[in-house]
Amino acid sequence: MPELLYWLDLFGVVVFAFSGALMAGRYQLDPFGVVVLSAVTAIGGGTIRDVILDTQVFWIKNPLYLYVILLTAILTIVLIRCPKRIPKRFLLIADAFGLALFAVLGTQKAMALGAPISVSIVMGTLTGVAGGMIRDVICNVIPLILRQEIYATAAILGGGLYVFFNYLGWSENFSIIFAILGALKLRLAAIYWQVSLPAFQIIEKNDV
Amino acid sequence: MPELLYWLDLFGVVVFAFSGALMAGRYQLDPFGVVVLSAVTAIGGGTIRDVILDTQVFWIKNPLYLYVILLTAILTIVLIRCPKRIPKRFLLIADAFGLALFAVLGTQKAMALGAPISVSIVMGTLTGVAGGMIRDVICNVIPLILRQEIYATAAILGGGLYVFFNYLGWSENFSIIFAILGALKLRLAAIYWQVSLPAFQIIEKNDV
Amino acid sequence: MPELLYWLDLFGVVVFAFSGALMAGRYQLDPFGVVVLSAVTAIGGGTIRDVILDTQVFWIKNPLYLYVILLTAILTIVLIRCPKRIPKRFLLIADAFGLALFAVLGTQKAMALGAPISVSIVMGTLTGVAGGMIRDVICNVIPLILRQEIYATAAILGGGLYVFFNYLGWSENFSIIFAILGALKLRLAAIYWQVSLPAFQIIEKNDV
Repeated sequence: MPELLYWLDLFGVVVFAFSGALMAGRYQLDPFGVVVLSAVTAIGGGTIRDVILDTQVFWIKNPLYLYVILLTAILTIVLIRCPKRIPKRFLLIADAFGLALFAVLGTQKAMALGAPISVSIVMGTLTGVAGGMIRDVICNVIPLILRQEIYATAAILGGGLYVFFNYLGWSENFSIIFAILGALKLRLAAIYWQVSLPAFQIIEKNDV
Repeated sequence: MPELLYWLDLFGVVVFAFSGALMAGRYQLDPFGVVVLSAVTAIGGGTIRDVILDTQVFWIKNPLYLYVILLTAILTIVLIRCPKRIPKRFLLIADAFGLALFAVLGTQKAMALGAPISVSIVMGTLTGVAGGMIRDVICNVIPLILRQEIYATAAILGGGLYVFFNYLGWSENFSIIFAILGALKLRLAAIYWQVSLPAFQIIEKNDV
Repeated sequence: MPELLYWLDLFGVVVFAFSGALMAGRYQLDPFGVVVLSAVTAIGGGTIRDVILDTQVFWIKNPLYLYVILLTAILTIVLIRCPKRIPKRFLLIADAFGLALFAVLGTQKAMALGAPISVSIVMGTLTGVAGGMIRDVICNVIPLILRQEIYATAAILGGGLYVFFNYLGWSENFSIIFAILGALKLRLAAIYWQVSLPAFQIIEKNDV
């Protein structure tokens, strides 16, 4: 059972590292710049989670994550070099996978460490959202969380579903997989059909 | 006495959550996006403070803060929906309250944990400034701290006044309240009359 | 021997504080705003490093760093006031010194705390890169790491050289000094001759 968690976590690192490398490709970074941006995206969220929970940061306990990021960045550079033209949605889709995986796994880790439910869902959302947000802020791109399509909502749904399935007494593996699928489906649907919840809008006046 | 601290802290969370929700309204975020931006603004500074001081993060110890943020975000959405047009200064004023409150309370918490005076004032400034800064950086808005009007100065004044009143032997409650009022008055005056200290300006040449 | 580390570390704080103050001069911040931006730039990277390594943050252990930053900011304001026009490269060069110093010293600190080599080089890169990155992100300037000239590469080289010299059995002092010189030379060369590694570029299509 903990093995599944581990592989899913590694997969989340891979897809977020891939999204960071794709973003780096827009800025024509040199190879080491690509690796740094991949790493920030892939381990940013989980690092903040572990620091706030005051547990040992996951990639210090197990540096394999760093090699996986290095490998992902190199493979992205090598494999994408040839076509050079890739669909713009690649980055969005990789980001969606990372968001769903990390939101659920972050919630799971916080609960396993004994955090209350509300805190766990916040930690999950943070884990899913923060890496991509740092990537976008560094690159001066409007963060995905500020776009109209469902984003934070998908992360909160992922954490919420995990808590709910857990409460229903489902096995850990099933809870995790179905919560990830739920969040992923919502986010991918939002990307494809540009679905969005009714927005909260303010029109500000300059005078008091 | 600790009760006053607690209520002021909650009030600071409310005003910063409100400012985050107002900012979200400019970007037409969906309701969950509003909640996330409110939370980042309201607990960002205090979280960084607690992590650096290596004490348990305040909203993990007491998740009530999270519910207060959720409630504030929902109320902001519901109540502001109708007029839809609000004065632009609302955000600035909510931010000023949060700045003054958190700068003084952050200084107080650091001193209570035994940090030296210089470190305490830095922690206070950080607590007051960081949440709003993260909000502005995420939203790609020029952070308030980069504007000409007195901002960092008000935060440092708040922490400094608290240390000074404490040194004079005033009671904790009085020290806190008057330090907050001092910082708040300075910042509000700077907003209304656009007061600013003489600025430090460099003109850069392109050639060496 | 630890004395050399200490002086180099202080020197790194001075040059990064100087670069933060120069950046503040572009935005005509008031004096306290200058101090805050200097501090964020100078201690941002090391603070994140210490928090992740779960060791006491260096400027809490020794608040002298804070006074050094204050002094640097004041001196920058006073001394640069007169000419008012300074070469644009001053900021780049100060940043290069800080990058090289902190990348090597960060790697050294992580190894001294028992971190594996891969983690140590990542921590060094983070220490060197993060302060300047936060400075640039706050100021809404494109971070130096996103520019084409060798930047992350110089930081990784610094950490890598230190590990290599250490492995060769060189004395601590020599390892540190030559690793710093190596990283610095690479970065300064990249600035002067605008050298860059072959870039990784992607052209994205809007359609799937």
